[in-house]
Amino acid sequence: MVMLLRRDFLAGAVGAAFMRAPTNRFGMLGKVIARPGQRDALVKNLLAAAELVGKAPGCELYVVHTSPTEPDAVWVTEVWRSKEDHDGSLTVNGVKELITKTRPLIAEMGEPTYTVPVGGKGLASI
Amino acid sequence: MVMLLRRDFLAGAVGAAFMRAPTNRFGMLGKVIARPGQRDALVKNLLAAAELVGKAPGCELYVVHTSPTEPDAVWVTEVWRSKEDHDGSLTVNGVKELITKTRPLIAEMGEPTYTVPVGGKGLASI
Repeated sequence: MVMLLRRDFLAGAVGAAFMRAPTNRFGMLGKVIARPGQRDALVKNLLAAAELVGKAPGCELYVVHTSPTEPDAVWVTEVWRSKEDHDGSLTVNGVKELITKTRPLIAEMGEPTYTVPVGGKGLASI
Repeated sequence: MVMLLRRDFLAGAVGAAFMRAPTNRFGMLGKVIARPGQRDALVKNLLAAAELVGKAPGCELYVVHTSPTEPDAVWVTEVWRSKEDHDGSLTVNGVKELITKTRPLIAEMGEPTYTVPVGGKGLASI
């Protein structure tokens, strides 16, 4: 409620263009290295994860990528309405089982890059 | 045509789940460092770029992010139907002018990470 009021104030004060800035969004760019020969199995599980958490409140993007140069690498780029929504997704039915099933396919997980997604094509302005 | 035939063959042979893999999609995760004090101006121009190229054929995602830890950093994550569509977007009306206007705001451009986007939430399966 306070947040909505604040947004209305900002909208009146500085116009709609600035509305994109005060975002609470949470983004993650994560790289995972599959064990040799397991990349496609890992991709399949991550697409299953996208199906599951994609329906969770606040999940805006959950995109799985491979790499044109690193045969074992998989990228996941996520955008959530808030960090709380991201954290909440871990309790979605089936997610824990999927994590358990996926762990043996992974050789290495890079430290994710955290972002504050602002807007653009494919993401509603907030 | 050959591509379509190949996809039909694969669909028949191994089922719809595998259809997500043979993608020609082109992804880029790019980091740009703004000159001190210019980050918000840079974000504004990149959101304007998203408006312009977001309407170009084959642009699926063009998301602008800031960083929670690096005050001058801006991330752009892009998904295109193909590299050719991405390259073609540089000829969209107004893009060259926007690049010229944006260059002075930039201190440093990191080497982008190229990806092959496969699917997930926010991206149609192909």
